[in-house]
Amino acid sequence: MSPTVDAQDVAVLALPQALPMEVGMPFQVLTSRTAEHYRVTLCGRRPGPVPTTGGFPVVAQAGLEAVVAADTVIVPAYRTAPEPPPDDVLDALRTAHARGARIMSICVGAFALAAAGLLDGRRATTHWAHADQLAAQYPLVRVDADVLFVDEGDVITSAGVASGIDACLHLVRTDLGAAVANRVARAIVAAPHRDGGQAQFIARDTPTHTASALAATRAWALEHLHEPLTVADLARHARMSARTLARAFDAETGRSPLRWLTAARVDRARDLLERTAWSTDRVAHESGLGTAANMRLHFHRQVGVSPSDYRRTFANAPT
Amino acid sequence: MSPTVDAQDVAVLALPQALPMEVGMPFQVLTSRTAEHYRVTLCGRRPGPVPTTGGFPVVAQAGLEAVVAADTVIVPAYRTAPEPPPDDVLDALRTAHARGARIMSICVGAFALAAAGLLDGRRATTHWAHADQLAAQYPLVRVDADVLFVDEGDVITSAGVASGIDACLHLVRTDLGAAVANRVARAIVAAPHRDGGQAQFIARDTPTHTASALAATRAWALEHLHEPLTVADLARHARMSARTLARAFDAETGRSPLRWLTAARVDRARDLLERTAWSTDRVAHESGLGTAANMRLHFHRQVGVSPSDYRRTFANAPT
Repeated sequence: MSPTVDAQDVAVLALPQALPMEVGMPFQVLTSRTAEHYRVTLCGRRPGPVPTTGGFPVVAQAGLEAVVAADTVIVPAYRTAPEPPPDDVLDALRTAHARGARIMSICVGAFALAAAGLLDGRRATTHWAHADQLAAQYPLVRVDADVLFVDEGDVITSAGVASGIDACLHLVRTDLGAAVANRVARAIVAAPHRDGGQAQFIARDTPTHTASALAATRAWALEHLHEPLTVADLARHARMSARTLARAFDAETGRSPLRWLTAARVDRARDLLERTAWSTDRVAHESGLGTAANMRLHFHRQVGVSPSDYRRTFANAPT
Repeated sequence: MSPTVDAQDVAVLALPQALPMEVGMPFQVLTSRTAEHYRVTLCGRRPGPVPTTGGFPVVAQAGLEAVVAADTVIVPAYRTAPEPPPDDVLDALRTAHARGARIMSICVGAFALAAAGLLDGRRATTHWAHADQLAAQYPLVRVDADVLFVDEGDVITSAGVASGIDACLHLVRTDLGAAVANRVARAIVAAPHRDGGQAQFIARDTPTHTASALAATRAWALEHLHEPLTVADLARHARMSARTLARAFDAETGRSPLRWLTAARVDRARDLLERTAWSTDRVAHESGLGTAANMRLHFHRQVGVSPSDYRRTFANAPT
């Protein structure tokens, strides 16, 4: 196939201690059966070796001048995130963006975009384990840890690691249409659309071990999830009024007592779905969610997939 | 976490024109939250730069001596496959295997293992687009293109590209258990078990354009799939006896006329599920599979997932 007339330049910016699989993603996804629409170049702060977390260097073909000149710039994760990259890198990202380039991050590459100010006032995502830190460090960014990627048009952020494949497929779909994206997905043996977002991959809450006003009450609640606990029960255990309890929960967990309780029950259900072969009725009962239908409702809201899909994916069964 | 007592050495062997995303996979999957169980080293024929299909080199930390000494050797795809790698590479793979190392390939890396004779008499897989060639070139290998990976104990082969992630997760599950593999899967935002194997990604048959005794009959059948075609109808159109037709179909397609017809109907159903919003009843009817239940049966057998799961993954709907 000959190149499409509107072929575009993509700069993959490898920062020191980049993750090598993520560095490889745009080269794999954007150049598989896309009729040479994308010319993808590995860039560093300057041409030459860039160390990776794999312990081996990748050799950048170009420096920041190619980042500034690109149509699309992709920043894979780098291990020193959340530290911002050096100023010349931030300047290159800002200049490229101001020129009209599309800027995309993979995983914690989002910290580089945030440091350049490109995410201010925008929705964005990153690896779930670093989403809270991104939000704390850059309060103008509206962080959504539940999705696989966020497309704000000129800025695209993807969630952790493998979500970079989803985001690259999204680029192809946006630029060349769904049929081409499906063809690419088949060629790389990846789903063109993955169900359920990043939410289902977020590790379950574990009881906090830090001393806090509510630590004892939360630990007690986690041991009684299968019982019909109410917010009044929690308040009684904490020896607080319902209003004080609500304020304390909000301060410690960012949630109301009821939402915290429901989230803890869904977490328990996830654990039981993974580790047991119990029926969904029994899982719903043991996690205090009542009926399978009620569990499905809350589960889908929090995890993004149904309990049975979740079990199919995560059950610890031998293969 | 401190290293596990039985930590093992993994050699990733980058052959010239290796695919960079696949080179990165073992480094990502085997070193994410595995308590330093794996020491992963990038190897080449000798230490130094190895060109990749991305246009940039990766720099191998060690040569073939590290391949020979490793506990596990992983060979990612290289663009010159199906050509065998040089003799010193084949010797290193054979020596490592004879020493008791586990040898794994990703994608068309399987051609290197086959050339070394390591797949003789074994089940193996590779990228679906190259499975027929692997089988033709190495007739002692029992090639299965429908699965994401094949584990024969001392030799593991994975299907195309992203299946390398599945196979690396399988290594972790085998070595460290399902709970650790699930933890790794969450960390890299990938499913610990993917449904349905590689079969669902295989590109649909297109009518052959080569002159053949059956070309006209097959093209005619593809235009009448929604009708109640029988093998007798095909024989009548081809002006052959049923036995001659069966022999001709077997020679041209490797299938009986009925199996070819059913496969063509399932392919039509896949296409309709992707491109239309029709009900499964209507898709079953239009593809000549009769009822939704009958379609589900044949669809699952051929594609490995249900029609509704397939549509959810591949529908060309805008996101």
